[in-house]
Amino acid sequence: VSESPSAALLSVGDEILLGQIADTNAAHIADQLWRRGWPVRQQRAVGDRLEDITAAVAELARGHRVLVLTGGLGPTADDLTRQALAAVAGVELVEDETALAQVRARFAAMGRPMSERNRVQGRMPAGAAVIENPVGTAPGIDLELDACRVFALPGVPGEMRRLLRDHVLPAVGPGPLGEVAVKELHLWGLGESAVGERLGDLMARGRQPEVGTRAQEGLITVRILAWSESREAAAALAAADEAVVRQRLADFLVAADGISLPQAVVDLLRREGLSLALAESCTGGLVGRRLTEVPGASEVLREGFIVYSNEAKRRRLAIPAELLEAHGAVSEPVARALAANVRRVAEADCGIGITGIAGPGGGTAEKPVGLVHVAVASPAGTVHRECRFALDREGNRVRAAMTALGLLWRLVRYGPERALP
Amino acid sequence: VSESPSAALLSVGDEILLGQIADTNAAHIADQLWRRGWPVRQQRAVGDRLEDITAAVAELARGHRVLVLTGGLGPTADDLTRQALAAVAGVELVEDETALAQVRARFAAMGRPMSERNRVQGRMPAGAAVIENPVGTAPGIDLELDACRVFALPGVPGEMRRLLRDHVLPAVGPGPLGEVAVKELHLWGLGESAVGERLGDLMARGRQPEVGTRAQEGLITVRILAWSESREAAAALAAADEAVVRQRLADFLVAADGISLPQAVVDLLRREGLSLALAESCTGGLVGRRLTEVPGASEVLREGFIVYSNEAKRRRLAIPAELLEAHGAVSEPVARALAANVRRVAEADCGIGITGIAGPGGGTAEKPVGLVHVAVASPAGTVHRECRFALDREGNRVRAAMTALGLLWRLVRYGPERALP
Repeated sequence: VSESPSAALLSVGDEILLGQIADTNAAHIADQLWRRGWPVRQQRAVGDRLEDITAAVAELARGHRVLVLTGGLGPTADDLTRQALAAVAGVELVEDETALAQVRARFAAMGRPMSERNRVQGRMPAGAAVIENPVGTAPGIDLELDACRVFALPGVPGEMRRLLRDHVLPAVGPGPLGEVAVKELHLWGLGESAVGERLGDLMARGRQPEVGTRAQEGLITVRILAWSESREAAAALAAADEAVVRQRLADFLVAADGISLPQAVVDLLRREGLSLALAESCTGGLVGRRLTEVPGASEVLREGFIVYSNEAKRRRLAIPAELLEAHGAVSEPVARALAANVRRVAEADCGIGITGIAGPGGGTAEKPVGLVHVAVASPAGTVHRECRFALDREGNRVRAAMTALGLLWRLVRYGPERALP
Repeated sequence: VSESPSAALLSVGDEILLGQIADTNAAHIADQLWRRGWPVRQQRAVGDRLEDITAAVAELARGHRVLVLTGGLGPTADDLTRQALAAVAGVELVEDETALAQVRARFAAMGRPMSERNRVQGRMPAGAAVIENPVGTAPGIDLELDACRVFALPGVPGEMRRLLRDHVLPAVGPGPLGEVAVKELHLWGLGESAVGERLGDLMARGRQPEVGTRAQEGLITVRILAWSESREAAAALAAADEAVVRQRLADFLVAADGISLPQAVVDLLRREGLSLALAESCTGGLVGRRLTEVPGASEVLREGFIVYSNEAKRRRLAIPAELLEAHGAVSEPVARALAANVRRVAEADCGIGITGIAGPGGGTAEKPVGLVHVAVASPAGTVHRECRFALDREGNRVRAAMTALGLLWRLVRYGPERALP
């Protein structure tokens, strides 16, 4: 298929073919392989049919140097990856003592009896190596099909990520692109087309480094991908572009690389010695959930209140009944009061207050679905933004949470006058 | 590849191959095709390389009766789907007046001048039909490659969905499976292999309806797929299996079809007239976030406390300092006190208390990462479960949240004696 050595991915499972789940495993594996210099040229998904899995494995193994499969390693009759690999390799499936011992050990660790059915997870194509799975019952499989190194991993995302990191990536080593440097810069407060205009020439096709943008949850990520023979040369290429991007978009840059906006907020608050408290109505815990994804968030997050009802707003955060009656719960004064009062009640330096109509119901002509009032307060002052999102319930809530975090970041970084982008 | 007529999907775009986005378009198209009786046997993704797109189109068109492409129809140099289709068909790309008129009309509707660059979007493989795009600038393409009907749609999800619904699905008509019925049953409290054992014969390969299982976030979903000439006959086939599955797994069935566990909890509490309050430590708002994804959650969710710190546990929920000192924050007594006290403080009927060590840091030999104590309280009593998850921080937190919701569901449904599965 392609002229230089490359990698391919194969996801196995009716749930993907039936459209019941989006294949997020493939995205993660592709990202990790590219970062190690392995160009991923093809992704495929097939259902739980032995002939389809076998045909796909045979074809992809012919055209690529590395093939990573996910799924089909469970204990049930529709888990057929083991059989397919054995068929392509032209060997028998045999009970593998190492694999079976691992399955047994996992059940022992969970304090559950191993069912006779799970015995099948200890079967391996003859000659294949077992990939130990310390976090689940399905061992992975590592085997060679002519010039292709094939890895079969469980489809459960947490297990897949673990075996990929600990076994697959070390096993394949650096890829044909040589050393790859990837730099990502995350922007908040500017749209994707405006970012594209400012980047201009950097985004030309065929240019190295490759510079691209993507929009997600209200943030724009600029991605710089450079490759060269040495790590230093690749890093230098990426760093040169990074400097230009930073200069052109300095005001909107909130984080870089693996750092998310929540983590950037936690880092900034920690650096400034500021604590935070949350008052969430329509987001219902989403801001707390995102902040506490960051290990160490406890250093800055004092506490959070999910004040979904008016009663909770009154009782926990002393929002006056008159304010709620005069303006409605979804209003600028209530958002500001939530942010100000949660600071006081929790004795925190900063406060976030969010109130809105996430949908699908509850909208009126005056206050439509998607209307969200976000307020953030710090010792330096309070800022507010009225948002009118046009997404579904989930999208509106995520955008509201990210708006609160973006605004708080700017408030702490630039002060109240320059907080609104 | 397969013996009966089938459909295949091809997604085109570097952003997928680079792992920057998960391919959600494919899931939507697959779901829609299956529901009309078209079995989707393969999904592929390739990058913006003419040779890769051409090879994939040629191969998939040989093996399938329907092929739906997405992506690569934009105006830039890396949009190569038009060229690839012309190459496989062995025809020229020609400027198509209908297509060009549509591109012009879209720009006029947006009140923006059409750039010379967008002219390329009016080019079509000679002989192909234009698919009108009323919501974007890229017209779709409809052409036949021998026995395969090929549709190329824009990659923007909102545009793709529109053209799929208005053009592709009517054009392909009912598929070879005839009418299809899909039924999903969601179980909590039983492992996937135990579910497989109880289903036994139902999961035999080649049987109709097809019965399969998948594990996600601690729940097991049983999926029944039936097909027949009439909608009624397909539904009857699925219903017969559903009755057997329900009978064999009655104790563990929490929800069906599009209903999630959080929604099942909200529905059950609403039906029983019970309210709920949350005390979340290590999950940091995740339970609240999941419950408030359900429209109407406000009817049962009184409020939530994100009590990440010991101070917040003491101040908000009156957890005695002595209890925290004697047992540590991550302990059964503290989890039970959180659940019991949040009920009282919030004047709610039910309470959830979660405390644990999500990781990656903070673990000890005695209390390792992944240890989570979950307690749920109702007017009938309180139950507790000690969990030892072995996933990453995110995985441990999600499993802890789902355990709390599963336990609460069982506590309300079966009472304290039978709540623990």
